[in-house]
Amino acid sequence: MKTYFKTYLSLIFLLFNMWFLMSQNNIEKWDRYEVVLNHKIKKGVNPYQDIDLTAKFYNADTTFVVNGFYDGKDTFRLRFMPQQIGDWQYITASNIEELNKKTGGFKCVSPANNNHGMVQVNDTYYFKYSDGKQYYPFGTTAYAWIHMGQELQEETLNTLKNSGFNKLRMCVLSKNYKLVKEEPIYYPFELKKVKTNSEGMKEFEWDFSQFNPEFFQHLERRIDDLNKIGVQADLILFHPYDDGRWGFDSMSPEVNIAYVKYLTARLSSFQNVWWSLANEWDYVTAKEKSEWDTLIKTVNKNDPYGHLCSIHGSTAMYYDYWMPEITHVSIQDEAPVLNSYTSATLRNVYKKPIVLDEVGYEGNLRNRWGRLSPEMMMHMTWNGVIAGAYVTHGETYLTNNETDTIFWADGGSFKGTSPKRIAFLRDIVETAPEPLYMADISRDTKTAAAGKGYYLMYFGKDMQEAWLFNLPKKNSNLEKLKEGARFKVEIIDAWDMTITEYPEVFETMKVDDDYRLYDKELKEIRLPYKPFIALRIKEVD
Amino acid sequence: MKTYFKTYLSLIFLLFNMWFLMSQNNIEKWDRYEVVLNHKIKKGVNPYQDIDLTAKFYNADTTFVVNGFYDGKDTFRLRFMPQQIGDWQYITASNIEELNKKTGGFKCVSPANNNHGMVQVNDTYYFKYSDGKQYYPFGTTAYAWIHMGQELQEETLNTLKNSGFNKLRMCVLSKNYKLVKEEPIYYPFELKKVKTNSEGMKEFEWDFSQFNPEFFQHLERRIDDLNKIGVQADLILFHPYDDGRWGFDSMSPEVNIAYVKYLTARLSSFQNVWWSLANEWDYVTAKEKSEWDTLIKTVNKNDPYGHLCSIHGSTAMYYDYWMPEITHVSIQDEAPVLNSYTSATLRNVYKKPIVLDEVGYEGNLRNRWGRLSPEMMMHMTWNGVIAGAYVTHGETYLTNNETDTIFWADGGSFKGTSPKRIAFLRDIVETAPEPLYMADISRDTKTAAAGKGYYLMYFGKDMQEAWLFNLPKKNSNLEKLKEGARFKVEIIDAWDMTITEYPEVFETMKVDDDYRLYDKELKEIRLPYKPFIALRIKEVD
Repeated sequence: MKTYFKTYLSLIFLLFNMWFLMSQNNIEKWDRYEVVLNHKIKKGVNPYQDIDLTAKFYNADTTFVVNGFYDGKDTFRLRFMPQQIGDWQYITASNIEELNKKTGGFKCVSPANNNHGMVQVNDTYYFKYSDGKQYYPFGTTAYAWIHMGQELQEETLNTLKNSGFNKLRMCVLSKNYKLVKEEPIYYPFELKKVKTNSEGMKEFEWDFSQFNPEFFQHLERRIDDLNKIGVQADLILFHPYDDGRWGFDSMSPEVNIAYVKYLTARLSSFQNVWWSLANEWDYVTAKEKSEWDTLIKTVNKNDPYGHLCSIHGSTAMYYDYWMPEITHVSIQDEAPVLNSYTSATLRNVYKKPIVLDEVGYEGNLRNRWGRLSPEMMMHMTWNGVIAGAYVTHGETYLTNNETDTIFWADGGSFKGTSPKRIAFLRDIVETAPEPLYMADISRDTKTAAAGKGYYLMYFGKDMQEAWLFNLPKKNSNLEKLKEGARFKVEIIDAWDMTITEYPEVFETMKVDDDYRLYDKELKEIRLPYKPFIALRIKEVD
Repeated sequence: MKTYFKTYLSLIFLLFNMWFLMSQNNIEKWDRYEVVLNHKIKKGVNPYQDIDLTAKFYNADTTFVVNGFYDGKDTFRLRFMPQQIGDWQYITASNIEELNKKTGGFKCVSPANNNHGMVQVNDTYYFKYSDGKQYYPFGTTAYAWIHMGQELQEETLNTLKNSGFNKLRMCVLSKNYKLVKEEPIYYPFELKKVKTNSEGMKEFEWDFSQFNPEFFQHLERRIDDLNKIGVQADLILFHPYDDGRWGFDSMSPEVNIAYVKYLTARLSSFQNVWWSLANEWDYVTAKEKSEWDTLIKTVNKNDPYGHLCSIHGSTAMYYDYWMPEITHVSIQDEAPVLNSYTSATLRNVYKKPIVLDEVGYEGNLRNRWGRLSPEMMMHMTWNGVIAGAYVTHGETYLTNNETDTIFWADGGSFKGTSPKRIAFLRDIVETAPEPLYMADISRDTKTAAAGKGYYLMYFGKDMQEAWLFNLPKKNSNLEKLKEGARFKVEIIDAWDMTITEYPEVFETMKVDDDYRLYDKELKEIRLPYKPFIALRIKEVD
């Protein structure tokens, strides 16, 4: 009986192993393949510092070198995101015999429908997934959401799932701020000692040479959770919101580099990761600017796939975004979205995608950065979009007191009314044939185009009773608009979220030596006498 | 009798020589010292290509190496602009014995009152003369003025002398454009042949290996003429306005470099020269962008004094102004001056002085770049200045037909009414204690400050009946404004050019946790209900 039971168990175990190996051996393109290696860490050996582990992943065409990492409990991992369908092999290299020259392979298969790969820069100013699908960032912000209680984290995920947001700015490290005082569940480093000082404050002593794998495992689960609901994790690696509480803003340059290397080893194979070196880098007083340059280059060097990478400063603090390692511009500044055209100037300057990753938050704080009306939050988002840029949302409603759950830091649920308007705009943007850009740069400040014969015109604060049909002759570098082109117009109310088709067709008339074309009967459209009116204008046959 | 006369002549000659040598031997600081060397050019020798000539100028502290140049008629020159008072020596080096190891010296003496030296970048965003005097560029444009008739050139100089402009954008090379068809008096290269083609057009054949010294001597006279009236020559080295007429826009890369080297050898010692590599560089179809980079570096390398250097593109075409050789940003773009704050964003981006060297011209052309109203030209200038940038004027009034003398290209006299308003603004800027910058960046879009307790607030298009006294707490990086500060206010009418002091004194009141300070009695000022109203607000004891 006993033997029979044993055999039965062995069989189950074998079948499980076979299933496991087979599932491991068929990896979707842009999904994650993981090699697990075991090695008993000897006393006195620091597995994070003393053990080198890399692997070459190769197919007939190409080779990737990935860094392995120690994940605790005598376990090392090497992760790889295949970019090509077909067979892949690997061979490891290590200064430890047991980890060295390990080989294996897997089959990379077609991605599932919801797997589009990584988001990358496309056509200078825009983003696309690896599979060619356009990606338009409509982000929001929940800096410390992974450091809150598990229940709140689930609520955040649920909120995001049912929102129009597809990018989340979030900090790797915990946040200490007037409105965010929660102690995190996990710490990134091994805690040597903690004591409570005379003022009742905890004083932590860390072993910065030992990471805490649980911290990173938790982070990874949450990044995967975001990926499942189609949200890019705009990961903030450093920030100034520490103020002596944990000291993670003032670690030594060597620790910072080790931390960046450890993060990139663990996370580069996650398809929805973006690297944001910092939030408000210039407020991190312990680092010189040159250290940021070094950290940016460290990320770049250690990420084999070239995930999106940028850095974010305080208000109107522009980094050297022309650095080749920086893929897009991530700015905190409201000035460019006070109107519908200045973000386009930033495109002209940098020739990279422009993401305004903080223009203020919808909320009711006394701080001016946290008291935008929902109308203004929405208006600024439209302003950026019309100019061919992207704007990140945030929400800071304080209802009771400073322990309130504020989405901008804690996550939770939205109280504001801009998110659904932003989702409405996202739908407009995603149904356009191409990404938006200004049709007649620096001259027509209201008209975006999205390829030939497709325009989005935004009147913003300007209320007008009627609009005389007219379009710029110029459409960026495309062929100029000619006479005889026929258009249908839809009136969009950005706040009320309505789209009303105007019944008539307009036809452009020739005007000599001018910059605009009008309808041949000079027809005009009666508009709602309200702010935030836009027009969607499409050429018809 | 004959002998007596001869002796008399010799004496005169000797005295003249002594005066000449003495005057040559006392050179003002930042003035021009010139070494003249003669060498008979042998047949078959190209003095521009085959003869190398440099000189070291040195004093106890420092050494400058300057390039010599051939000036025709067997004459070589070496020019030097001393930057320190005291004795200077030189020694030449050449591959020609007769020009080699020539030595000499002169005494550099204190500059005269009207000699302030070169204009250079100061404090990141601003300009100063070498002697420390602030320089605020209020420029205008007369691209081809030196290629017009001499009488018109004199008229231009007279116009500039009596205007408020202190910088002139001007092309070295002649201009061929719909509105500018004049044949220049001088050509920069030796003309080998000219014939008239079947369409009646002249076809020139140049010897690009031989410069025409007369061309450059004339250019130099005009640069000196500008210097005498306090105008900086913003010299445009290349431009696209040629269209096959002379071919100066499509010379070989080698000729372009030789031309830049020849220009820098001749002109680096001119204190009022700025290098503008191009007007509308991207319209010069014969050059790749990499050639511009090379030409910028060539200027930088061959100018021992580091004159201001930039490059200018077509509308909204931003160069890599972060290149270290580029000292300031010279942009053609009206978008940044459509409001009073976007130019400040460009300062934040580049961390260099921002000069908007074409935002459109006051005029009546059909082209939109040439039909600004004087009000708009003035308003754009104010917009740039409030944001801590500089705006260049231009004028394009066509009265009769295309042969009209239009200041923007030909020079002549102003017909427009913005120049005197710009002069009025210049006076306001120059009497401020420091250069202007935005006091509360990206938040207060109307208020410039000029150090502690000094503000200029511009309402632009916003007409208002009254202004409640209030100022931002923030004043860039200076100490924040506090309660109890007392201010006087002047009302400026930018168009009518009036400054009216408001009789009362205002005193700031403390307001907790806010971003602005108001008068303690909440006093307000009745304003003229007009556009283009500004306030000058000065702290008083």
